[in-house]
Amino acid sequence: PVGRGGERRAIALANPSLGGRPFATPTLWAAIQYLMPGEDAPEHRHTQHAFRFVVEGSGVWTVVGGDPVPMNRGDFLPQAGWNWHAHHNATSRPMAWIDGLDIPFQYLTEAQFFEFGRDEIGDAERITPERSRSERLWGHPGLRPLSAAPATPGSPLLSYKWEHTDAALRDQLLLEREGFGGTVEPGHAAVRYANPHDGSDVLPTIRAEFHRVARGAETAPVRETGSSVYQVFDGSGTVTVGAKSWTVTRGDLFVVPSWEPFSARSEAGDTDSDSGGLDLFRFSDAPVFEALRIDRTQKDA
Amino acid sequence: PVGRGGERRAIALANPSLGGRPFATPTLWAAIQYLMPGEDAPEHRHTQHAFRFVVEGSGVWTVVGGDPVPMNRGDFLPQAGWNWHAHHNATSRPMAWIDGLDIPFQYLTEAQFFEFGRDEIGDAERITPERSRSERLWGHPGLRPLSAAPATPGSPLLSYKWEHTDAALRDQLLLEREGFGGTVEPGHAAVRYANPHDGSDVLPTIRAEFHRVARGAETAPVRETGSSVYQVFDGSGTVTVGAKSWTVTRGDLFVVPSWEPFSARSEAGDTDSDSGGLDLFRFSDAPVFEALRIDRTQKDA
Amino acid sequence: PVGRGGERRAIALANPSLGGRPFATPTLWAAIQYLMPGEDAPEHRHTQHAFRFVVEGSGVWTVVGGDPVPMNRGDFLPQAGWNWHAHHNATSRPMAWIDGLDIPFQYLTEAQFFEFGRDEIGDAERITPERSRSERLWGHPGLRPLSAAPATPGSPLLSYKWEHTDAALRDQLLLEREGFGGTVEPGHAAVRYANPHDGSDVLPTIRAEFHRVARGAETAPVRETGSSVYQVFDGSGTVTVGAKSWTVTRGDLFVVPSWEPFSARSEAGDTDSDSGGLDLFRFSDAPVFEALRIDRTQKDA
Amino acid sequence: PVGRGGERRAIALANPSLGGRPFATPTLWAAIQYLMPGEDAPEHRHTQHAFRFVVEGSGVWTVVGGDPVPMNRGDFLPQAGWNWHAHHNATSRPMAWIDGLDIPFQYLTEAQFFEFGRDEIGDAERITPERSRSERLWGHPGLRPLSAAPATPGSPLLSYKWEHTDAALRDQLLLEREGFGGTVEPGHAAVRYANPHDGSDVLPTIRAEFHRVARGAETAPVRETGSSVYQVFDGSGTVTVGAKSWTVTRGDLFVVPSWEPFSARSEAGDTDSDSGGLDLFRFSDAPVFEALRIDRTQKDA
Repeated sequence: PVGRGGERRAIALANPSLGGRPFATPTLWAAIQYLMPGEDAPEHRHTQHAFRFVVEGSGVWTVVGGDPVPMNRGDFLPQAGWNWHAHHNATSRPMAWIDGLDIPFQYLTEAQFFEFGRDEIGDAERITPERSRSERLWGHPGLRPLSAAPATPGSPLLSYKWEHTDAALRDQLLLEREGFGGTVEPGHAAVRYANPHDGSDVLPTIRAEFHRVARGAETAPVRETGSSVYQVFDGSGTVTVGAKSWTVTRGDLFVVPSWEPFSARSEAGDTDSDSGGLDLFRFSDAPVFEALRIDRTQKDA
Repeated sequence: PVGRGGERRAIALANPSLGGRPFATPTLWAAIQYLMPGEDAPEHRHTQHAFRFVVEGSGVWTVVGGDPVPMNRGDFLPQAGWNWHAHHNATSRPMAWIDGLDIPFQYLTEAQFFEFGRDEIGDAERITPERSRSERLWGHPGLRPLSAAPATPGSPLLSYKWEHTDAALRDQLLLEREGFGGTVEPGHAAVRYANPHDGSDVLPTIRAEFHRVARGAETAPVRETGSSVYQVFDGSGTVTVGAKSWTVTRGDLFVVPSWEPFSARSEAGDTDSDSGGLDLFRFSDAPVFEALRIDRTQKDA
Repeated sequence: PVGRGGERRAIALANPSLGGRPFATPTLWAAIQYLMPGEDAPEHRHTQHAFRFVVEGSGVWTVVGGDPVPMNRGDFLPQAGWNWHAHHNATSRPMAWIDGLDIPFQYLTEAQFFEFGRDEIGDAERITPERSRSERLWGHPGLRPLSAAPATPGSPLLSYKWEHTDAALRDQLLLEREGFGGTVEPGHAAVRYANPHDGSDVLPTIRAEFHRVARGAETAPVRETGSSVYQVFDGSGTVTVGAKSWTVTRGDLFVVPSWEPFSARSEAGDTDSDSGGLDLFRFSDAPVFEALRIDRTQKDA
Repeated sequence: PVGRGGERRAIALANPSLGGRPFATPTLWAAIQYLMPGEDAPEHRHTQHAFRFVVEGSGVWTVVGGDPVPMNRGDFLPQAGWNWHAHHNATSRPMAWIDGLDIPFQYLTEAQFFEFGRDEIGDAERITPERSRSERLWGHPGLRPLSAAPATPGSPLLSYKWEHTDAALRDQLLLEREGFGGTVEPGHAAVRYANPHDGSDVLPTIRAEFHRVARGAETAPVRETGSSVYQVFDGSGTVTVGAKSWTVTRGDLFVVPSWEPFSARSEAGDTDSDSGGLDLFRFSDAPVFEALRIDRTQKDA
């Protein structure tokens, strides 16, 4: 197992412009976490707001406050601060996901607390349901349980399954084709993961989105205050950040710094993308900027 | 067709304690509306917030701002004020639904406006899709389109399909049986229809809920300020309002006045209820009371 | 004393279009209350939101939750629902004020509760301070006590003294004269009484404002949903409501119904107005309309 | 004059634990700014939220968006981001104030923008009114102008004059003595500077408070996430931060880091304090923590 001390087996992205610290941006941490067959990660909790976004594999359950949440490629699992959580891998294959946290932000502002939990989760938590209890309570579109309001900040829905994200993006591109809009701009579908309790961002400090750029389409350059991390979930294309352009393919991670114009061109073909487009997962610190009224956006002509 | 003048073929519930006016409660209007095969209802709009809840049949499409929304038994269709809407019946059967509006409230406060629209909807609107465009944009759980925020008050999701409501209630009762709560009280599952944009009530003045009371269960008496209308969607049982009790079965409508204790006992059996329980649709003026800080609730011992 | 049964000595305004009930508008109650020298009014509380606006005299203290609040001509005293209150008149003169409540609104929606309190207030409450304790805590501009947030809806500031209202209006007209705006329109100064805790209306269902129209000025006709009651606090002029115009002078009360255009022309002169203008106190049900998103405003050309 | 390049003559507090940068805390900048007789500071604007708190002297006017705001000992002048501002000193004496900004926070998050304005303000701005226009519009307790809502984040009231702060604190201590509470704890009066528009903090990222500890009183130790800067405005006493205690007197500045327990004991006497107590001005980054739901408070027993 992944024991105490290590706690987790993760490779953090260290932005070279941030002085050697393992920070992806001034406010965001991004790491690839890897769990071997049969491995567990022990329980802990921290004030940092976190999420997992599964990039490869399946068969791991994250146990959040006793609720086992399945993880499969494309699933997004938000994890608001101060919730107990552990992982167990029930399959015979390794698995990989992106860990996103607001560690740099909470480190800077000196907001962070951490506690160790149990070394082992109980048998009742070592089960492998297809849906977490949180999904069964909060995962029905437009419906909320009368039984309880969420006790803590952040989304009470602990998993946003890939099938829903994929369907929503597909619907947007079809609506556009039928002449009814629905996309951000031609060929560019996008959704925000939202808290079903109040429609806010899934985490108080982190916004998460998924973008699909149809083959041949290109997004218009946009500048925003605040920083973002992108993962190329599927497909391939060219991204431009400020004065630099480069080619990206499935699995790549990159950063867009504050106020640098960003655009993406989809060159994905039928063979290198399930959706036929460039699929981009994005997370950013936008909620910090909006809550504090320091957000700015500019579309370059 | 249902022509101008009549505008709609509806039987309104007139509460005998309200002086002969066609009002179900001091604030709420409830009517059964009936549309014959092939009939249309012409277009109009009004400031009254409204919804349709389908009690029998299928095959009608409500056209809201040009978006045809299918209607089938159990579907809930909110319709915030000042949206253009018309209906067309594409099948060979009649169909019935409950019309709920805040007519008495807006009449009393002298808030209402009304406008006639087109006599006939266009061919492009006379189509019969399985999902409305609003559902394709807003009906994916926990996901919201980046393309647009709703321009008007009320939910941008124009249909809450029965299959989701049914599944959510079933999940709650199963969670309870597994020992994880999820219900309001033993044997009593309930959901609120919510605006996916911000988690608020679907309409500024009307709250809509669906309750399922498992066979043999009884809800605890609760008093609330504000009035409610209930429809027995399925099953049978006994309801108690204040000092009176009576038996209800599928299709019945009744009212719970302000501050009268209400409870329901499910006597539904396998043969008279698809879900095996007493299924109650409810709408109320609770948002008015909460917004104005005049709400009170009391659970009687 | 004004004993139980009568509770208060008040003359309510009964709008002839409202079926003989003592209601000024469909949602608002307005009465002139009169307290004789040395008289007390016994303690009670009710869910209705209320205020007192002093039109003549001085020397009465309203005791709210044990806090004696002085009353003098021009003072505005909001009184959110469910607070205990009584009055005592410490002087040798009678006194008159306007009582404004949301009685019709709460009556219609069946929201109201009422309780009798003590017959006599205690000696410690029969004192005559110049400022209430609420003013000493909440009456310093832009400053709020760290010691406590208000426990109930409505303003924690129990008196808005005339000297501040008068100064604010004078300042606006001077700023306009100096070329810096500050008025609603030329010659028309206006303030809203606001909750210092959160800037909201002083009462959840009632908005209160004070308007000063400089001599010779006329306000542009405005239509709004919702109803208002005006009192001519000082000066004289001509008001137009819909198709009717009439002359008003100090002490007059009138109503502006929903969606009727209203304008006022000041004909006040130096001798009939302390401020040299037409001074209008106004209260309305605007917070109800805004909270429920049924408000509309239109400036006629 | 203080020309371009220098822009301002200020001594910044550099916390030795922050790596040599001129930051008082991880999020806050504090400096003493000094303006000589007859000097001006040229116009500029920046996204950083800022304030001035006058510690010595009088006779300077800050010109904010063309509105000259007088500065006198004890006055607090908030200055939300992106407003043009300049200073001019109309007297024959130098003057000193504390400049507080969220520079470290905006620097870290890469949120900041800056623009130069005019080199010289106009004659119409070089006037010396006793009250700014913002005070004439927004400085009347509980009253807000109907003419305009603030266009930008932050308080529309540009000066909180010392006389009001002093009176509010005096009132609290008197109320306590009369047996009616009003203080935070025995002998400890405190106010928060608030936005009169909505009751929020004066600046989106900075909270400002004023505390008065009566002679002989001691505040209970409190831990809070987030950092604070204190200035001893008047009086003397002993402060304890974590394990360290030291004596402070008028003019001292000190910092309380995140989660360090803080308490203050007043040893002020009649001769060394106008109020007879220990007067502490405080500013902190609390709004950041509260907006992002990472705030914690703990009162040590």
